[in-house]
Parts: sequence; C-alpha cells; structure tokens
Amino acid sequence: MRTRPLKVALLGCGVVGSEVARIMTTHADDLAARVGAPVELAGVAVRRPDRVRQGIDPALVTADATALVKRGDIDVVVEVIGGIEPARTLITTAFEHGASVVSANKALLAQDGAALHAAAEEHGEDLYYEAAVAGAIPLIRPLRESLAGDKVNRVLGIVNGTTNFILDKMDSTGAGYQEALDEATALGYAEADPTADVEGFDAAAKAAILAGIAFHTRVRLDDVYREGMTEVTAADFASATRMGCTIKLLAICERAEDGGSVTARVHPAMIPLSHPLASVHGAYNAVFVESDAAGQLMFYGPGAGGAPTASAVLGDLVAVCRNRLNGATGPGESAYAALPVSPMGDVVTRYHISLDVADKPGVLAQVATVFAEHGVSIDTVRQQGRNQSGGDAVAIEQGGGRREGGEASLVVVTHRASDASLSGTVEALRKLDTVRGVASIMRVEGE
Amino acid sequence: MRTRPLKVALLGCGVVGSEVARIMTTHADDLAARVGAPVELAGVAVRRPDRVRQGIDPALVTADATALVKRGDIDVVVEVIGGIEPARTLITTAFEHGASVVSANKALLAQDGAALHAAAEEHGEDLYYEAAVAGAIPLIRPLRESLAGDKVNRVLGIVNGTTNFILDKMDSTGAGYQEALDEATALGYAEADPTADVEGFDAAAKAAILAGIAFHTRVRLDDVYREGMTEVTAADFASATRMGCTIKLLAICERAEDGGSVTARVHPAMIPLSHPLASVHGAYNAVFVESDAAGQLMFYGPGAGGAPTASAVLGDLVAVCRNRLNGATGPGESAYAALPVSPMGDVVTRYHISLDVADKPGVLAQVATVFAEHGVSIDTVRQQGRNQSGGDAVAIEQGGGRREGGEASLVVVTHRASDASLSGTVEALRKLDTVRGVASIMRVEGE
Ligand SMILES: NC(=O)c1ccc[n+]([C@@H]2O[C@H](COP(=O)([O-])OP(=O)(O)OC[C@H]3O[C@@H](n4cnc5c(N)ncnc54)[C@H](OP(=O)(O)O)[C@@H]3O)[C@@H](O)[C@H]2O)c1
Ligand SMILES: NC(=O)c1ccc[n+]([C@@H]2O[C@H](COP(=O)([O-])OP(=O)(O)OC[C@H]3O[C@@H](n4cnc5c(N)ncnc54)[C@H](OP(=O)(O)O)[C@@H]3O)[C@@H](O)[C@H]2O)c1
Repeated sequence: MRTRPLKVALLGCGVVGSEVARIMTTHADDLAARVGAPVELAGVAVRRPDRVRQGIDPALVTADATALVKRGDIDVVVEVIGGIEPARTLITTAFEHGASVVSANKALLAQDGAALHAAAEEHGEDLYYEAAVAGAIPLIRPLRESLAGDKVNRVLGIVNGTTNFILDKMDSTGAGYQEALDEATALGYAEADPTADVEGFDAAAKAAILAGIAFHTRVRLDDVYREGMTEVTAADFASATRMGCTIKLLAICERAEDGGSVTARVHPAMIPLSHPLASVHGAYNAVFVESDAAGQLMFYGPGAGGAPTASAVLGDLVAVCRNRLNGATGPGESAYAALPVSPMGDVVTRYHISLDVADKPGVLAQVATVFAEHGVSIDTVRQQGRNQSGGDAVAIEQGGGRREGGEASLVVVTHRASDASLSGTVEALRKLDTVRGVASIMRVEGE
Repeated sequence: MRTRPLKVALLGCGVVGSEVARIMTTHADDLAARVGAPVELAGVAVRRPDRVRQGIDPALVTADATALVKRGDIDVVVEVIGGIEPARTLITTAFEHGASVVSANKALLAQDGAALHAAAEEHGEDLYYEAAVAGAIPLIRPLRESLAGDKVNRVLGIVNGTTNFILDKMDSTGAGYQEALDEATALGYAEADPTADVEGFDAAAKAAILAGIAFHTRVRLDDVYREGMTEVTAADFASATRMGCTIKLLAICERAEDGGSVTARVHPAMIPLSHPLASVHGAYNAVFVESDAAGQLMFYGPGAGGAPTASAVLGDLVAVCRNRLNGATGPGESAYAALPVSPMGDVVTRYHISLDVADKPGVLAQVATVFAEHGVSIDTVRQQGRNQSGGDAVAIEQGGGRREGGEASLVVVTHRASDASLSGTVEALRKLDTVRGVASIMRVEGE
C-alpha cells in the first residue's frame, strides 16, 4: 500500500457533505485498504465557515472554495454544494488543476453534463456522479458498466422520493394533494419550496442523465418532456383503483421500436398493482431497466438522505482514487450512438381519459367517433354518475346505455396511440357541445 | 479509436457461450464504440468441434482449448465451460500467456477464487465474474465498487432460479416437492440431475462469493452452511401461510452484531409476505443488501439463461477490454478484513418448530421448560389437531388448554436465538417421552 495519501477537497458540508466527511473519518482504515492508499480529507469549503461542524477539524474549513480547488495538491474534489454556480466553475477549475471530481449534482449534470465531461476528458480526469440519480441505488455504474455489452431499450423508474411519498400517502389514505404535501413537509420529506420535486424538475434532470447513459446519446434537459404531479386528485386515485392500478410519478426513457430514436419524459402515470414499481412505498426509489439480453432488471433503495447519498459518493470516490493510483481514468461520456431525441408527440402509450359529458343519448357515439377519426383505438369505456367518482363504475357497451338523471362522466381507456394523436383527439373532444370538460388525462404504463 | 482489435478466445459455446458469440457478432459495432477498439472473436473451444454452430465461422472452432489459450495473441479469455477442470487450468494458463479472464463459473470461483485471484494479480491480469452470481443481475460490481465506501452488514438473497421456481409452485398450487420438481424439469427450469440446485450447492457457491466480496474476507465453500430444500413439504407451506409468510431458499451472509466475525449459509426459510423477496416469483433472482450508510438496497432480475448470463459476461468483457486499453487492471480480490467465519452454531435467528406430541395434559409445560433451559425464548405456541395441518390453528396459552382427542401437533415460534441453542433444545425435546417426533424446523428470516 502506498503511504502518501490521496487528498480530497470537500465542497459543501450540508446534508450530504457532512455524512461524506463523517464516513471518511470513521472508516479511514477501510477506505485506505480498499483504495490502496490513505485517503485524506484535505479541506472543506462551505458558505458559513464559522459554524461548528461536528467531527471536522476547524482548520480544514474554508469559505474560499476556489482557493481550495486551486491548491494544486488535491487529487479528488467532491462537489456536494448543489445548483449551477459556483459548482460548475469549481468543477472545471478542479479539472484544470489536476483533480478528478465526484459530484451528486443532478441539476448541473443534466444541464451541462456534456461540457463537464469534455473538460474532464481534456484534462485526463474522472467525472463520477452515481449519487446524482436515485441516491444510494447503484444505477449509473450498472447502466454504464454492467450493461455495457447489452442494448438497453427502456428505463422506467421512480426517481423522486418526495413525490413518491406524497402519491403513496394519497393512495393509502385517500388524502388530496395538498394534505399529503403538508404531511411530507412536516416529516421533512418535502422542502419548504417543493417546486423542483412536485413539478418534476428533479426527476426530469435524472431522466436526462439516465437516458444519456442508457442510449449512448446526449439527452439535454430540454429534451425531456415534463409534467408535474400537483394536479393528481383523489378522484384520479379512485379511477386508478378501479383499473387495478396506482399512480406514480415516473421517469421513462425509451428507445423507439424501430431503434432509430429515443424519448425521455416525466409525468404521473397509472401502473398496474402487479407491477413491481407499484409496491415501492414511501420515499423509496426504484428503477426498472429493460434490455435485449438481460431482460428486466430492477434496482431498489433509498433515493435520498445524507447517509445513503454519501454511500454513493464514497463508492465513486474509491473508484476515482483507484483509477488515479492506476494512472488511468474510468469510462467517460459515451454519446457515440447520437440518436435523435423525439418530441413527446411521438411517444406511444395508453391513456385513461375522464370526460364530463351531457347526459344525452348519442354522446358516447359522438365521442367514439372523435377517437376513431384520430386513429386512437378505444379499449374500454365506462360511464358513471357525476357525483359518484368514488363509487363503482358501471360498464356500458359502446354506443349503448346511459345513467338516468344528472350529468355523466365518461371514462375512456385507449389502446396504444401516439401522444400527438391523443392530443388531437382531446382537442376535438373539447369542441364537442356535449363534452363539458376534460376532467383528467393520465397515461397508463408498465403493462 | 484504436483499429487493432482486441482478441477474445471463447472457451465453451453452450447455453451461455453461444449467446456471447451471437452478441459479439451482431453488436460488434456497439462493442467497439464502447470499448474504444474493435473486439474480435479469435477462437472458440468446444468439446465437439464438428457440431454445426449457427453464426460461428467453423474456422474459429477448435477442440484444443489449451492451444487456443496459449496462442499468445489473445487479450481476453471468456471461460463458459463450467466445472473445475479443465476450466481452472485453462484460466491459469491464460494468465500465464498474457490474457485476462472473464468467467461465469461459480463452482470454480467459490472453490478456488483466492488462488485464481492470486494468479491474476501475479501476472497483472484481470479476473471478472459478474455472471457467476445471479446471472444478469449486476451484483458483484455494485458490491465491489458502488458500495466500496460503505460497510455491508447483510446480504440476503434468492440466488437460485430452479429452487425458487419449485418453491413458488408449491406455494401457489399446494403441490408437493416432487410434483413441483417434475414440472420444473418438464419446463426446462431444472436439469435432469437437479442435485446442485435443490441441495443448495449452487446457492452455497454464490453465497461464498458474495460473502467474500461483501465482507472483504476470504470465505471458502466449506465455510458456508448448506441445507437443501428437498424436505420442504406442503405442510410447511401451510404453516408459513398461517404465519403470513412464504418459504424461500435463501443465501444469507451476515456480519455478527459485534462486527468481529461473519457467517454464510444457505437454507430454506420462512419470510414475511411483506418482505420484497417474498414477491420474487418463478425463476427470478433477487438480492437484498443492507449496509451502514446506503440502508436497504435490492437488485432483481433473471438469475440464469443464456442471454441474461451473456449480458453479464459481455459487461465484464467490455470492462476488461477498457482496462487493457488503459494499461490498467480493475479491482482484484479484497480480503484485507480477514474476519473469522463463524460456524452455523453462532448464527442468531428465529425458528418455527413443529412437534408431534402426545395429547396429554402437561406436555406444553414440559416442552416450554426445555426451551427455557436452553435459553431459547418462545414467541408463540400453537396447538393443532394431528390431521388438521391445513386447517386453522388454535392459539392456546402457555401451559394451558389442549385439543380433545387424537394426537396433537405443537408449533413453537421462538425469539432470536443461536443455532447452537436451538439444536440443543431440539436434541433435548427428542428425548422427551411425550414428544413423538420433530416434524420440521424452519428458520424465520427477513423480519
Ligand atoms: N440531500 C439529499 O438527500 C441529496 C440526495 C441526492 C443528491 N443530492 C445532491 O447533493 C448536493 C448537496 O445537497 P445537500 O442536501 O447536502 O445540500 P445542503 O444541505 O444545502 O448543503 C449544501 C452545502 O454547500 C455549502 N455551500 C453553499 N454554497 C456554497 C458556496 N458558494 N461555496 C461553498 N460552499 C457552499 C453549504 O454551506 P453551509 O453549510 O455553510 O450552508 C452547505 O454545506 C446537491 O447537488 C443535491 O442535489 C442531495
Ligand atoms: N446456463 C445458465 O443459465 C448459466 C447461468 C449462470 C452461469 N452459468 C455458468 O456458465 C458456465 C457455462 O454454462 P452453460 O449452461 O453454458 O453450459 P453448457 O451449455 O453445458 O456449455 C458448456 C460448453 O463447454 C464446452 N466444453 C465442455 N467441456 C469442454 C472442454 N473440455 N473443452 C472445451 N470446451 C468444453 C461444451 O462443448 P460442446 O458444445 O461441444 O458440448 C459447451 O459448448 C458454467 O460455469 C455455468 O455455471 C450458466
């Protein structure tokens, strides 16, 4: 074993950083044995250097992250500040000064991954970021390395713990969105400003990263279709239950059937209760990967939290340190396939549509005609009394019966159709006199 | 990209090897892009070289595996022959002749892993074997690399598809062991001689490999306690159902609570239906990993089959090829912790014991006294009519009631106790006049 230590600069010492520092200190001997050299915490940059930080030598703490990164003796920079700046500049500065980088920063990687990878490669440094997607769950390494000889066709996952907690609450208690969000906030599962989570920005960043790695293609954040889950209602869960489904906020990266393009999207979707993702409860994450040879794989675990995320950071740290001792670098960006990323309109899936309609004879025939005209084939139609969304549905035959009295609500479940065809259908439906409103449109996945 | 190809010798072209060859041929461009150089199938060694092998140039096929490995221009040897010899000699010969090795051979790795790793290291070559444990499921790489900065405390998994298929059948249909085995054989899930699977030898080999990697400690096959599943009965499943459990053949690798030793074992066990492993059906595999920082992770997927296993082999092949181009090697054996492997007697868990007893007053008091004398604390006791094993149990109070008429069957579920204490208890119970027989002892895990 080499006795000269590898020096690590820790940028950020918050939820994740403090756990990284703790494990580096308490497990120093194990890390040294696994790396083949001691791994030394050489400096810690924070915003407020005067705060007491348990277990960290105050002499190591600085507010000047730039100076720390430029010191010249740093082997690995661990960036757990978050956000775009100063993280981005600090990372490129690290490469310029001969350090490799481990980061947990999904927002930055999703936005500037290509440029950062290029900078790493230019300087012959590593850029690792397992912790950026699904916290502790090994996902980037399996996709990039274990499946390197396979062809991934689909990645389907729950990659945001906050929204999974909220949706799981709504499902199990019948609570509405706001009530479930309040509970998540009270329990510390949601931040004071939950926008990034509930509007799907966080999941979209992860989807961009996953799609890029899975398909060896650059996928920008803008390429990811994004729909949050703030409009999911208790009525949607009632509909889902009736269909033997639950609702999850899913990140879905797919190769088109002809293999010539890919898509990436984040939105709430119904999935059958029999699907393994349906039983991912609370703030847990899980990701399904489908590939040609391996078939269906699933990876499950805690998607966030200080210690779990630190576990992923430290796994990367050990790998980067080993590479350094070997005088080598690990796999960099792989974007050789350069497949076009298709827009949402090209995505093909099934849909669950709730319509408020006039309770007149012939409405169903009208509605069915609109679907047919847009080439969207109907699987099932149910009609139910307006104020009975929580009750039993009454299955009716195409063009047939209706419920007496009151307005009616019509639930249509389609066969697979493109998002563009579905949008056209919905637009035309809204123009029908007999359609009072489109109460909800939800995609149905995982079948 | 380098234009000179990396040359691969394929040893064995059966279920797994033929898929490796197929993917290497059909995905040659992708492999080249991911490796950074073309990867060429330079030779294929088989037992019967004259057999027609679809998609493989007959000029590449040879019966002389040794000559192929000694050719001198081979970069990577892929060993998918299986068994101890000639695989072992071929692998060491490969190292001696400057080639790295990818293998799917659990039997060999479990028996001679340490010596093979030493040979690889001596010659500066890689030895990778992701496919040896749980087929397509990335497990060795996540344990070795992703969790390299964490402390793994427990690995609990279903690592044999044949036995999971059989047990799942027994559970869902009420079939007996032989009937379920016959069906597995007919469907190709069990081999003509199923001994290696049903007696737990295959799972024990995987447990040895997993424990070694998880605990950075050499664990020999002999260190693994092994109990097959041929004696699991329909009555056991009925008992399990009554407890809200199912029965799985589990591989369990654990660090003792004081951290000073480890254990590895394979046996059938009851696990609660709420445990994620309980819903692993058919021939699928899944492995739970518990670590200090990451918490609970689960990895799920197909544990065998030509294509899934080939996916894992090819992932390793790409990694080894990249290492070679980098002039480096990946992580080798890590056994620095060198923890003692404790015998089965030291394992602490819960037990479900069915006793056939004389239906006399005072029997329960006698039985309870024996448990107490051996320091095994009882959680619940149930008494049921002898011929009613499938019916409802009648919960009774300690030292209390009994069922009128016929012999009785007593079911005891214990709190956590060492295997040695339990064995002592059972030995003493057998000596009681009133205990006619010990119908079954089953461990209860995953709670
Ligand atoms: N928390 C999770 O569960 C989780 C999971 C996966 C990934 N991540 C990612 O991990 C990263 C860190 O998250 P976190 O939850 O640990 O954040 P956090 O608790 O807010 O910690 C941020 C840290 O960065 C420091 N900092 C802020 N601005 C700085 C600056 N300009 N220069 C130097 N230091 C600065 C802060 O200093 P002070 O201590 O002085 O405020 C603090 O120590 C983010 O990219 C996040 O997306 C987090
Ligand atoms: N099958 C699975 O699902 C699976 C899953 C995980 C791991 N594995 C492991 O993968 C390995 C291969 O399994 P498999 O199922 O592919 O076995 P298999 O179908 O029996 O194929 C064995 C191959 O090795 C060849 N062979 C046998 N003896 C040889 C010798 N002395 N010299 C050269 N070639 C020889 C055979 O040649 P012929 O073709 O001429 O008979 C055959 O091509 C084993 O270690 C197994 O444990 C298998």
